[in-house]
Amino acid sequence: MREYGEATITDAVLDRVANAPDSRVRQISEALVRHLHAFIREVEPTEAEWEWGIRFLTETGRMCSETRQEFILLSDTLGVSMLVDAINHRFPSGATETTVFGPFYAAAAPDFESGADIRGHLKGRPMYVEGRVTDVNGLPLAGAVVDVWHSDEEGFYDLQRLDQGTGLAGRGRFLSGADGRFHFWTVRPSPYPIPDDGPVGRMLKAQGRHPFRPEHIHFMIVAPGHRKLVTHIFAAGDKYLDSDVVFGVKKSLVEEYQARHGGHAPDGRVMDGDWFSLEYEFRLAPAS
Amino acid sequence: MREYGEATITDAVLDRVANAPDSRVRQISEALVRHLHAFIREVEPTEAEWEWGIRFLTETGRMCSETRQEFILLSDTLGVSMLVDAINHRFPSGATETTVFGPFYAAAAPDFESGADIRGHLKGRPMYVEGRVTDVNGLPLAGAVVDVWHSDEEGFYDLQRLDQGTGLAGRGRFLSGADGRFHFWTVRPSPYPIPDDGPVGRMLKAQGRHPFRPEHIHFMIVAPGHRKLVTHIFAAGDKYLDSDVVFGVKKSLVEEYQARHGGHAPDGRVMDGDWFSLEYEFRLAPAS
Repeated sequence: MREYGEATITDAVLDRVANAPDSRVRQISEALVRHLHAFIREVEPTEAEWEWGIRFLTETGRMCSETRQEFILLSDTLGVSMLVDAINHRFPSGATETTVFGPFYAAAAPDFESGADIRGHLKGRPMYVEGRVTDVNGLPLAGAVVDVWHSDEEGFYDLQRLDQGTGLAGRGRFLSGADGRFHFWTVRPSPYPIPDDGPVGRMLKAQGRHPFRPEHIHFMIVAPGHRKLVTHIFAAGDKYLDSDVVFGVKKSLVEEYQARHGGHAPDGRVMDGDWFSLEYEFRLAPAS
Repeated sequence: MREYGEATITDAVLDRVANAPDSRVRQISEALVRHLHAFIREVEPTEAEWEWGIRFLTETGRMCSETRQEFILLSDTLGVSMLVDAINHRFPSGATETTVFGPFYAAAAPDFESGADIRGHLKGRPMYVEGRVTDVNGLPLAGAVVDVWHSDEEGFYDLQRLDQGTGLAGRGRFLSGADGRFHFWTVRPSPYPIPDDGPVGRMLKAQGRHPFRPEHIHFMIVAPGHRKLVTHIFAAGDKYLDSDVVFGVKKSLVEEYQARHGGHAPDGRVMDGDWFSLEYEFRLAPAS
């Protein structure tokens, strides 16, 4: 074949990658070529548009650092991360649904006893969170490892302010009790924009989109014999629920962050002023 | 919509980008989302494979510098550059075909009188090149600006050895004469591998591909009232013609680099030892 014209180029590239020794590399390469060429054939980019695309990808790469992953933001904002998440977590009905992991997990988060206050230096209004970990039939799972993390009242995570020397806060690791329960105190988080001072931010602007995520708390729950659950619980009523910039929302993950005033908290604490409470039951899918 | 699951996520993203104020941005965004999601749905990447993809793109970005454009190499080696080239140059029959521009053009190339030797410091065997610039009917075009560039006998361009302080060589700019003709002396180039010490090189290896381009000389020809022609003339018989790593070959662009020994060159020069000659007629498409 010595003729790589508009009619023949796609087949020529497919022929070439058909030699990949590893069958999965071959499969992914072939699919990539077919879909990428179909995209190009549909939009028929001018040479200037192609150059723009090369520049966009180059700048996206340049934006990546130890603390910033612009290609993950691109994947998130094009719905690819949620699609990959969905494909990899086809849980049976009855199991709590998953959503994106996000960039703000810290493996070094401290362990806490149930009942602890994890707010650390975060500012915000008091919030009481109680969870119950069960299997898909509602039977409690004791000793499940529950990781929690969330933003402060301004929408910033502790990790975004490490340069201020304030350390980790608003995150921690709990074990569920014999009844599958855990609870903790913290501050109510906030909706927040994803970092939008880079190429992805410019893309969102060009697409007429805002960069916000609705208010949520992250949970990652691991229990023997069950699939790992990575999810958020979103605040009911949030104005960004219908337009989460990373498409992370699922109806079943939206719950009332209940507004309270004074009185007694569920753990007996005497309260003064405004506070909030959230309860949720996390049902883990079986391992196989 | 508050349910971004496997069944609904693609439509949700399409709905979102449908708000792009600019219709071309909207069109490209919608097509990108459709084809990208179709790719993901077909290959069903594991989470580890998705992470690998993010890492591949990040490393490709990191490889880019003033003198290296790894995303263009990626576009080239996946046949995207040639497809974009074909879409943008649907010339009428009779016009010389185009191929990829490549990364080695230099706007600062020197002007030469027809007949000059452009080899500069490049090593290689003497080569005489004669061209004729015409319209699609074969009528000569006088005063066309003809840019020429090529590698040395080891497959390196002058630009790849600028750090050795040797400057530009093996390139230059000519004007066609009243009969549309130009000719020059230089050295015969060589097949060469594209830079393969980065992510694209690793991709080629995983796909079971070599990184070579067949031997060629670049031409860019501009004449008033005609479409710009960017092309190569490939050496007939080259072993990489059927497997050019960037899919740049077209039958009509393959021509004999004729082997000669001693005697007189077409311009009267008395030759000693081995040399080569190439003749080609470049037919430019009309401007509209």
